[in-house]
Amino acid sequence: MRFDIITVLPDLLESPFAHSILQRAKNKGLAEIYVHNLRDYSTNKHKSVDDYPYGGGSGMVLQIEPFAKCIEQLQAERTYDEIIYMTPDGETFNQDIANGLSTKGNMMILCGHYKGIDQRIRDIYVTKEISVGDYVLSGGELPAAIVTDAIVRLIPGVLSDETSALSDSFQDGLLDAPIYTRPADWKGHKVPDILLSGHEANIATWKHEQQLKRTQERRPDLLND
Amino acid sequence: MRFDIITVLPDLLESPFAHSILQRAKNKGLAEIYVHNLRDYSTNKHKSVDDYPYGGGSGMVLQIEPFAKCIEQLQAERTYDEIIYMTPDGETFNQDIANGLSTKGNMMILCGHYKGIDQRIRDIYVTKEISVGDYVLSGGELPAAIVTDAIVRLIPGVLSDETSALSDSFQDGLLDAPIYTRPADWKGHKVPDILLSGHEANIATWKHEQQLKRTQERRPDLLND
Repeated sequence: MRFDIITVLPDLLESPFAHSILQRAKNKGLAEIYVHNLRDYSTNKHKSVDDYPYGGGSGMVLQIEPFAKCIEQLQAERTYDEIIYMTPDGETFNQDIANGLSTKGNMMILCGHYKGIDQRIRDIYVTKEISVGDYVLSGGELPAAIVTDAIVRLIPGVLSDETSALSDSFQDGLLDAPIYTRPADWKGHKVPDILLSGHEANIATWKHEQQLKRTQERRPDLLND
Repeated sequence: MRFDIITVLPDLLESPFAHSILQRAKNKGLAEIYVHNLRDYSTNKHKSVDDYPYGGGSGMVLQIEPFAKCIEQLQAERTYDEIIYMTPDGETFNQDIANGLSTKGNMMILCGHYKGIDQRIRDIYVTKEISVGDYVLSGGELPAAIVTDAIVRLIPGVLSDETSALSDSFQDGLLDAPIYTRPADWKGHKVPDILLSGHEANIATWKHEQQLKRTQERRPDLLND
């Protein structure tokens, strides 16, 4: 799987892509992640890529030309399954979308910054618009890292324990049960007895009950879907 | 405003906090962000901070002792308004929560990793559990960066143009209108005439109509709230 991420702040993405799961996936040859600096595709000598919005209003807008140049250059090299734009008015990202995207080959991710990107980029090039949640951030870089992380960890072989991703919250439509590790008693705060019992079947029942209870309390909407 | 972020992967957060809005807020003295390495609070010579889950199951669990030591040391130095745990089963983060948290003083953010953290940390120390969305990531680091970014940009003086945050998606319950910048005609793809008209009142009406239309099409749930 290959990700090409286009941004005005490539340096911001340096450390997230150099650690943890993403680094491991790259080292194992399971994912390639390339970050492209939009300024390298500027059409003027000042390397500027933004301008004032038509019709007034605050904030700067990323122009169509540098994006078009970068996207078309990448498209000349290979076919892309999706060209994704990270935007708060996109489709709300969730585990189902992550599962779907984890089966794709090549993906481009466009990061907005400042006030956003020229609408024509969205109309002409973008195949999928994704929001990581109902909040506004200073750019699409962290959302791009979030989407990349959520997808890459689903690629078989990336997680050391393959059953790990399957038992995550949301994969079975329920939140996770409480988890505990040593010590069994910490200053009088004890691990539930059942987890120390060694009774596998009873523990499985308890965990499932806890998952249902937590989901009912915190996210009843997940049960009604 | 002060953020203390506790994580097993402090390096992962290096570049997001060294650029853009977060760097600007730090330089202006409007936000302090400290990242603490959980391993520095390990209670054993191997610097380990995780162990197997009680009752079986895949993935490792972060132990209570290192977190307790780090949290209590920070609490001895100052009072915290919130101790936030980033977790997919927390309250879903949104712009309202970001607005509320932007008025606080000191906040601690705990990042889970691997399978999560011992439930007793949540029971004893955590005051608020936040999820950035219904998807699973390899750790709480990127979510912590998201929450920090969403909050910090709301602090007066951080954005160069103070009206900018107010006109963002969600702040008025509507998605943003399409935006355009130069050139007015790009290979036959034109900016809507109204935006070039100079008629301020008509432009404002058009933008509001576009916001309503886009919200109706993409997120009718926002209109029904």
